[in-house]
Amino acid sequence: MATIPRLRDDLRGLAPYAVGKDMAPVRLNNNENPHGPADGMTNRLMRAVRESLATINRYPGGSPERLAAALAEYVAPWCRSENIWPGNGSNEALLYLLLAFGGPQQKAMLFAPTYAMHEQLCRITATPVAVVARDDDFALRAEAAAAAMEEHEPTLVFLCSPNNPTGTPLPPDVIATVLRYEPSLLIIDEAYFEYSQLPSAVSLVRDHPNVVVARTMSKAFAFAGARVGYAVGHAQVCAELQKISPPYRMSTITEALAMAALEMADLIPAQVAMALSERERVRTELESLGYRVADSDANFLLFGTVPDDHAEYEYYRDRGVLIRNVGPRGWLRTAIGEPAENDSFLACAAERRRTSRSVRFMQEGPACTV
Amino acid sequence: MATIPRLRDDLRGLAPYAVGKDMAPVRLNNNENPHGPADGMTNRLMRAVRESLATINRYPGGSPERLAAALAEYVAPWCRSENIWPGNGSNEALLYLLLAFGGPQQKAMLFAPTYAMHEQLCRITATPVAVVARDDDFALRAEAAAAAMEEHEPTLVFLCSPNNPTGTPLPPDVIATVLRYEPSLLIIDEAYFEYSQLPSAVSLVRDHPNVVVARTMSKAFAFAGARVGYAVGHAQVCAELQKISPPYRMSTITEALAMAALEMADLIPAQVAMALSERERVRTELESLGYRVADSDANFLLFGTVPDDHAEYEYYRDRGVLIRNVGPRGWLRTAIGEPAENDSFLACAAERRRTSRSVRFMQEGPACTV
Repeated sequence: MATIPRLRDDLRGLAPYAVGKDMAPVRLNNNENPHGPADGMTNRLMRAVRESLATINRYPGGSPERLAAALAEYVAPWCRSENIWPGNGSNEALLYLLLAFGGPQQKAMLFAPTYAMHEQLCRITATPVAVVARDDDFALRAEAAAAAMEEHEPTLVFLCSPNNPTGTPLPPDVIATVLRYEPSLLIIDEAYFEYSQLPSAVSLVRDHPNVVVARTMSKAFAFAGARVGYAVGHAQVCAELQKISPPYRMSTITEALAMAALEMADLIPAQVAMALSERERVRTELESLGYRVADSDANFLLFGTVPDDHAEYEYYRDRGVLIRNVGPRGWLRTAIGEPAENDSFLACAAERRRTSRSVRFMQEGPACTV
Repeated sequence: MATIPRLRDDLRGLAPYAVGKDMAPVRLNNNENPHGPADGMTNRLMRAVRESLATINRYPGGSPERLAAALAEYVAPWCRSENIWPGNGSNEALLYLLLAFGGPQQKAMLFAPTYAMHEQLCRITATPVAVVARDDDFALRAEAAAAAMEEHEPTLVFLCSPNNPTGTPLPPDVIATVLRYEPSLLIIDEAYFEYSQLPSAVSLVRDHPNVVVARTMSKAFAFAGARVGYAVGHAQVCAELQKISPPYRMSTITEALAMAALEMADLIPAQVAMALSERERVRTELESLGYRVADSDANFLLFGTVPDDHAEYEYYRDRGVLIRNVGPRGWLRTAIGEPAENDSFLACAAERRRTSRSVRFMQEGPACTV
């Protein structure tokens, strides 16, 4: 009698990426853009879908070239479709980057806590990975980056700008420092770049063929459900990715929807401005309640510290507000929602502070554990 | 100055899956279902999209569970959502099967010519693969399968039922023979099973936890543009796949479209009957023109043989008919289209036979090369 096939030895014990099952009226747990599409946008998207459905019995092009061209136009004036590898979410772009350029002969490095899929995808692609702890304030400084490059000698480096789940800005001198060590590949994850006050790293791609920037339409484009991400890199890097990619990887509908959404990119600045202004309002109120709040360059805040972050998560959830407790111990992450959602969140935070005599607010907090 | 990152050593020289760029009025090159959606179906699909767009700013569920349940209902009465791993096309299901259960410690085996992505995905996942040639008539017989199992001792076996690009039916005794050797994983690709006269292998999943069946909605469901495929396997196999899969891998829209299409599965039998009847008409005419036609259990035919299959491809293309020349040398593949499309194809075939004195029809043809 045959048995169940054995998972690859090096994947035993891999914990899956945690996706919460809880539901609540106020959902600030996934760093989503709170704005669903306005009527005009829905109509434009529906027209794009209707056109595409006429040929849904046919395969898409071998690669989503029209979308690549539209994304290139969004990225920068110098950018061409050859510099773009679109995928079903940035996770897919990261996966194919690691399938192409990772593997057992390489050594990756990342600075934790950071986006959990970076380490997960290294494991899945059998790429050894060194996990370096950030400073207690979650910052990554040039000296620390240099020391880590010298200690671990990675061939493949992940940076996250701004960093998730901490929100921490990535100073440009950290990127410059890492590049001085000439890693064979530097992946800069800019999922939240539209919210950042720092310049994007995409311009580095022109002079640094070892730099690839990963991006997503899930955040500023309010398109998390559509699964569209992309890598920006040297044309030859994108050509290598394309060479090893299965054909027809993106749906005709996804491509059409993404192109229609890109045409409405001018809606983004006002939504970003609202998010940043709300973020500072939430930060101020949290701090006035006695919480520590990490520096944020994104559409979310990491706050704490509390002795039991799971209990804290449940406290909010039971009051109709979902936040996230998968980051560093003692800290919680909340996305910035619409003003009324942020009010609900702040009401929970205030009530928790006022009523929970048993909660010890640790002004120093536990050391960052990864 | 940093250089372009080096592709993984073992992927150098990998030829990408060939996707044609040519266009023509009659497209029989991709084994697509010729039927675009009727108006009623388009309206139903549009309603599904409109509902989903309302929450497009939110991530989908961590895994497409509602789609898994709907697919399970389509597959078999005993089948549960835990037996289904839906993906963006069956290529994605095959990729994650190889990421989970393949790798350098395994040894895969396949019988060529077959679907080119099987070998391609083995290469991408660093899974060594033995390529065994089929008999000259493209059949795979139990004795040949047994001999190959004994010679190569694979841990992971691919079968394709019916086989692409040859159309060859897969006799059930071949599956039984392979299973007697207890490979750790047997993947049976049933992309074209709705057209087959043989029973599906999905029922084997109940007693054989080492069997996984890969399926697609690209063919009988006329949904190639939507990119929906799935694996049917033991619940624990699907759980392992889920464990290593990035979250949110399928779009909210894709999931909604696929569920709407599954509700219209009762359209399939009539379309399949038309395809099979047209296939036999095309076969008869090709044979009466002097071509050899391989046995087919699918919605396409492999015919030949000709000295130069690329010249043959171009001859048809220049007359507005796209066929495929990526199979065995001297043979060409044509999908079965709508009757008028098949007429156009047959007119080309007849004209080619009549006018090309320089074409030598090789009644025996070259040996199958892979």
